[in-house]
Amino acid sequence: MTNGTEGLLLQLFTIFVWAKVFGELFERLHLPSVLGEILAGIVLGPYATQFVIPTPTVFSIAEIGAIFLLFTVGLETNPKDLISVSRLSMRVAVGGVALTFIAGFWLMRADGQPVNESAFVAAAMVATSAGITARVLRDLNVLKFRVSRIVLAAAVFDDMLGMILLGIVVSVATGAGIRWLHLGLVIAEAAGFAVFMIYYGPRLVRRIRPGLQRMQTHDAPLVLALAICLGLSVVATKIGMAAIIGAFFAGLAFADFSPEWNLEPRAQAINQFLSPFFFFTMGSRLQLSVFSREVVVMGLAISLLAIITKMLGCGLPLFREGWMTMLRAGVGMTPRGEVALIVALVGLQMNMISQRSYALVIMMTAITTILPPPVLRILFREKVAALSPSGEAGSEVEESLHGGIG
Amino acid sequence: MTNGTEGLLLQLFTIFVWAKVFGELFERLHLPSVLGEILAGIVLGPYATQFVIPTPTVFSIAEIGAIFLLFTVGLETNPKDLISVSRLSMRVAVGGVALTFIAGFWLMRADGQPVNESAFVAAAMVATSAGITARVLRDLNVLKFRVSRIVLAAAVFDDMLGMILLGIVVSVATGAGIRWLHLGLVIAEAAGFAVFMIYYGPRLVRRIRPGLQRMQTHDAPLVLALAICLGLSVVATKIGMAAIIGAFFAGLAFADFSPEWNLEPRAQAINQFLSPFFFFTMGSRLQLSVFSREVVVMGLAISLLAIITKMLGCGLPLFREGWMTMLRAGVGMTPRGEVALIVALVGLQMNMISQRSYALVIMMTAITTILPPPVLRILFREKVAALSPSGEAGSEVEESLHGGIG
Repeated sequence: MTNGTEGLLLQLFTIFVWAKVFGELFERLHLPSVLGEILAGIVLGPYATQFVIPTPTVFSIAEIGAIFLLFTVGLETNPKDLISVSRLSMRVAVGGVALTFIAGFWLMRADGQPVNESAFVAAAMVATSAGITARVLRDLNVLKFRVSRIVLAAAVFDDMLGMILLGIVVSVATGAGIRWLHLGLVIAEAAGFAVFMIYYGPRLVRRIRPGLQRMQTHDAPLVLALAICLGLSVVATKIGMAAIIGAFFAGLAFADFSPEWNLEPRAQAINQFLSPFFFFTMGSRLQLSVFSREVVVMGLAISLLAIITKMLGCGLPLFREGWMTMLRAGVGMTPRGEVALIVALVGLQMNMISQRSYALVIMMTAITTILPPPVLRILFREKVAALSPSGEAGSEVEESLHGGIG
Repeated sequence: MTNGTEGLLLQLFTIFVWAKVFGELFERLHLPSVLGEILAGIVLGPYATQFVIPTPTVFSIAEIGAIFLLFTVGLETNPKDLISVSRLSMRVAVGGVALTFIAGFWLMRADGQPVNESAFVAAAMVATSAGITARVLRDLNVLKFRVSRIVLAAAVFDDMLGMILLGIVVSVATGAGIRWLHLGLVIAEAAGFAVFMIYYGPRLVRRIRPGLQRMQTHDAPLVLALAICLGLSVVATKIGMAAIIGAFFAGLAFADFSPEWNLEPRAQAINQFLSPFFFFTMGSRLQLSVFSREVVVMGLAISLLAIITKMLGCGLPLFREGWMTMLRAGVGMTPRGEVALIVALVGLQMNMISQRSYALVIMMTAITTILPPPVLRILFREKVAALSPSGEAGSEVEESLHGGIG
């Protein structure tokens, strides 16, 4: 309508189409499409061809995209499943997060980086991408196995741990050194929020359901879910966490009712529209000029460390389950994704990390995301083979499914 | 994440919730919820309680909301139905538009307003709200009757005529007087675009369907529809039309495939999220201080004129169908809505109309939207009564449905 709108629409159209074209190319190369969307931002963005210079409005739309990304992940997560394997998964998550954070922090310090910057990069290294892991396990058709559920629940837990770590790092970095009381409060708030939402979120939704049916508003359940997604995002920022964590818990609270109200495909539609802007702008922030030979070597070192520590930290708590399960869980937990990128982005926006560290995190995300899928395909081969011809193996799936939920 | 995001999320949450609360209240009073959402913007906006002062980013999101609103209307419109009753509907649409525009222009000139401003307000008066009309007819369960299809098709046509008029008014207002060659080009482009999209849009989509099925991208049809929605919005602005007209035709091109690809409920979800921002910001632009007694009287006069001219202009072309059909069509075509508001908004943004004229258009929209639904309920009473008890009347519905499509 006005010139501003024309320019905005043209930019949205350009970003959307190119992100999807790169995503399609990556899918055809059997690589995650999300990396293609990021690459589109790198190639077309201000630091390379300068074909698209995203405006502040597009960055805002991208951040709303991040909210819906995590809201959808929450909607797809069954809180009961999360609780059923929660103790073992929590150990796997904590093991992976602790080891990775300590090792990452040590490597950055050894490389001569400041404490705050080292803490940010280390925090970016901890969170497994629940989205990418779920996608790979779904493609392999092994989503119902116990180890898959342990991995998925652990990936969700360490998203939460990653966010809690981010909250801690931010509050420490902006405050005058480490204030233990403040730190304790941040951890208590985050843990309290998480426990409350996992246990009481779904019950609250169940309780307001009769009221919803009396509402005149067209499609009241979706409207309520969207309102709560925005509301909890605001609450999360108010208690010092990232907005996306609130959005994730909002999704989790509605997960049980998603089939009844047909929420997931519709949240996914909002996601389909908004998330390309998130990944594209993510790539567009990457300064290519920082990639000296030294940075590439450091990036490889960090990626290697991110893989080894995650495999050790996540595998070891499962030592009773046999080495194959340990290996599958370790590799399954390796991909980093949205949360890593968001932590790096927050650091960049707060001027807490340099363009060099931002580049390291993007490189680490790309490498840890590209390698595990083919390895998982090999590790799950016998399980898939056992499944396909006979009907017997199917009962194992059934059993593990019901055993987990009951 | 950053402070900017926190503020944005808080504002989005506040607007979304209040728009929906006012909408719910209006629904319970049997008034269109869209008027409630506009009222929320008036009451909470900068010219009244100043509870919410929308930022430029929110205004941009609101304009994307307008795009998806018309995209969804297009998706819900069957191009074949549009063609089947097209000649009669086109006459109804042209009659209503021409009479309303001339009378509106005359009244504003008689009131001593400048030519450009008079043309803008008159252009805002012409377009029937396809959305509100469809909603009322659906609620009455008479959507399948021939008169309903004539009314709906005419409402869609006069959305298009309204947009063409807007293009003309804008190009005349910004140019040096009326340039006939330029005017002819604008009309030819608009008509060509409309005819091309109605006849060839669906065929083009059908032709690329096999290619879509080979695509690796998750949910390729939705992705393509979204890309084309954004793309045609840009094209529309490039040829001097409003972006929403491009979005409408994009929806129309995909309407035939909407059931197969489950597009409509998912476009509707994006719409559910974005449209409250559009209607709220619309209300937030209304300066309450302009409502002197003189302006209220003028608003009532314009509303009365808008009702009479629409009933005459739309009813007369149907003189062969009997007075009841004329009356139903005339009342059915009365509600103004999104397009009227958008025309007024463009005028306001271009500094072509005053706050007073903006207020007149909002008042006219409210009055023409509130009055027809109860009147239609009375006019359709016998038809609905004939339908409900026996099974016979159902065949009339079936017949009119298939007769229209065949």
